[in-house]
Amino acid sequence: MQRTSFSDARCPIARSLERVGEWWSILILRDAFLGVTRFDDFQASLGIAPNMLTRRLRALTEAGLLERQRYNEKPPRYEYVLTPRGRDFRPVLLALMAWGNRQFAAEGPAMQMIDEVTGEVVQPVLVDAKTGVPIDRARHVMQAGPAADERIRARVKNYQEQRARERAASTPSSQ
Amino acid sequence: MQRTSFSDARCPIARSLERVGEWWSILILRDAFLGVTRFDDFQASLGIAPNMLTRRLRALTEAGLLERQRYNEKPPRYEYVLTPRGRDFRPVLLALMAWGNRQFAAEGPAMQMIDEVTGEVVQPVLVDAKTGVPIDRARHVMQAGPAADERIRARVKNYQEQRARERAASTPSSQ
Repeated sequence: MQRTSFSDARCPIARSLERVGEWWSILILRDAFLGVTRFDDFQASLGIAPNMLTRRLRALTEAGLLERQRYNEKPPRYEYVLTPRGRDFRPVLLALMAWGNRQFAAEGPAMQMIDEVTGEVVQPVLVDAKTGVPIDRARHVMQAGPAADERIRARVKNYQEQRARERAASTPSSQ
Repeated sequence: MQRTSFSDARCPIARSLERVGEWWSILILRDAFLGVTRFDDFQASLGIAPNMLTRRLRALTEAGLLERQRYNEKPPRYEYVLTPRGRDFRPVLLALMAWGNRQFAAEGPAMQMIDEVTGEVVQPVLVDAKTGVPIDRARHVMQAGPAADERIRARVKNYQEQRARERAASTPSSQ
């Protein structure tokens, strides 16, 4: 988990990365969403060294994203199943997939999502669940939350000041 | 960029991770979205070792997410500005932030997004831009795209077979 790398313990992005901030972990979660549960199947799909896979599965289990379940008694065999917290990671993976398809797929997408009702390729975008309005830098802004520490407060203050300057610069003067 | 770790070159998630699959890179992008552009400001915000910061900024620049711009002639000084490709990464960061706030913020969110029109905290969710329907595992399914290789095709086939079995198991028998 390499916790020591972060003094940024309050930032929700830093906290999320503490749990999954590693290529292998994110690819393991990708495969878990595609229905992979067993060690050998993860290994075959990922081409990852067994000791590394053991480590990443353990970290994801400790972080509460996967749950280890016994599927065979003799000999004991376990599979790794997404927990509710793990399933809740899905929008992050879909946002990564959409970005990869937009930015790094000159030859066309290799993996995509379709709507079974319309048969069309899905174009995932973030909206505010409360209003249905697509997230837009002009309207939706970052703010320090109730649990912010000094570091986050300073970071958000800089951002808000810069934003105010940008707005002032883009507003035509009243003359 | 540690390209050699991946034989999974076609998967859009693996490709995205090749560009940003490192904690520091993602936190650098977070700060860039908050308006940070200068080396010293990144360093102060992140508490990262200078040589590591230099490496990550170079990698993000080579991957086309940041652009190096000179802001002072004598002595020459550069800043790092998000490119369109870098700005397009925003939904991934917001999805990470939302997940972190839902899952790892027992004491309340430390950073959040608000809607300036309503003054309310934003709840970011993924919808299909074409239909407006929230992305839902029951309706939206993964599919191999035109550029899929054997590896992706096999992975998606397993997923679809498992999905068909789950559906069959949950459909009441016709007797």
